[in-house]
Amino acid sequence: MLTEKLNWRYATKKMDPARAVPQDKVDRILEAVQLAPTSSGLQPFEVIVVTNPEVKALLRAVAFDQAQITDGSHVLIFAAWDNYTAERIDAVVTETARQRGEATGVMTGYYDRLKAMYLPRSAEENYQHAARQAYIAFGMALTAAAFEAVDATPMEGFDPDQVDEILGLRARGLRSVTLLPLGYRAEEGDWLLGQKKVRKPMQDMVTEIA
Amino acid sequence: MLTEKLNWRYATKKMDPARAVPQDKVDRILEAVQLAPTSSGLQPFEVIVVTNPEVKALLRAVAFDQAQITDGSHVLIFAAWDNYTAERIDAVVTETARQRGEATGVMTGYYDRLKAMYLPRSAEENYQHAARQAYIAFGMALTAAAFEAVDATPMEGFDPDQVDEILGLRARGLRSVTLLPLGYRAEEGDWLLGQKKVRKPMQDMVTEIA
Repeated sequence: MLTEKLNWRYATKKMDPARAVPQDKVDRILEAVQLAPTSSGLQPFEVIVVTNPEVKALLRAVAFDQAQITDGSHVLIFAAWDNYTAERIDAVVTETARQRGEATGVMTGYYDRLKAMYLPRSAEENYQHAARQAYIAFGMALTAAAFEAVDATPMEGFDPDQVDEILGLRARGLRSVTLLPLGYRAEEGDWLLGQKKVRKPMQDMVTEIA
Repeated sequence: MLTEKLNWRYATKKMDPARAVPQDKVDRILEAVQLAPTSSGLQPFEVIVVTNPEVKALLRAVAFDQAQITDGSHVLIFAAWDNYTAERIDAVVTETARQRGEATGVMTGYYDRLKAMYLPRSAEENYQHAARQAYIAFGMALTAAAFEAVDATPMEGFDPDQVDEILGLRARGLRSVTLLPLGYRAEEGDWLLGQKKVRKPMQDMVTEIA
């Protein structure tokens, strides 16, 4: 069932600009992002959802002119925290206590150890760790799009500094990690559509130690 | 449907050592890993599947003594390429041509540009990029496990150098990135089982630019 969906999806090269993804489908894709597991549950990233045509055009211009960004109806930008901070970790503790109806006190030992681990590290190292978490959610979004029969194009090919600038991410303590245009594959004009999906043979990917 | 599965899963803290995951379920989890999209389709990682009890015990000892590693029946180790090389990229071109029944010549322009991008970069930078791709597959494995009603515990808490040493990964040009024990949740002894799943509210995670 999952395998069937993963075989259906592909990195769409040409989207139909006449078709928009309905909001309820976008919402369920975002719900999968929200449910993605992350290290210590910190969810150290945010998602920007762009439907504005002018902003999409600006993004396309700093992403090797990839047409899916403007032909798709939505572009998701996955943006990781630029650093772990005490305030951000405290906010997670507060939210967890609120949702579970617990006192924050029962959790502070665990989160104090997290702070002791993260806070002395460089911002760059912490950003890299946060970005990895965003990739888990990025994979979930790709999967969820396939379940919604929505096409998506995972993209790393863009200038992150310029995307950060366009979206004002640095001022919010965020750094762009990946883009994900959403839309519907065009009937014509996609060289990849209909090509056999190529993957490494299992014996080249897996080693068993039994 | 996907959402239901993602709500069912959780980072299992206590697995039942008496129950083993059947091979066909493990195979489908690995198939999801195989189908995960990666940058330029390079799939720059491998997966080690450990069922050997002695090796699991060695891994547990360098992973903060987390019991799921030995209580679960299988441990998947996601190991990223330590670098991009011309040989590794050429192998992908050859395999793609073989599976699509094309000459490699039609693809060389694209892959030559990839080489021009990756090969001058440091091994560390290339490894970090490869590791991010492994995280997409790691998320797919977590999702696939949920579809198989198999429990899994995503783990970053281990000493990667020691895991590399135990599994002989460096000699194969690989570096451990994440661990994923697979098994079945124990009926008792898991403090997290039954706790409300806490996630950032949607309004704190998503910004719309319409």
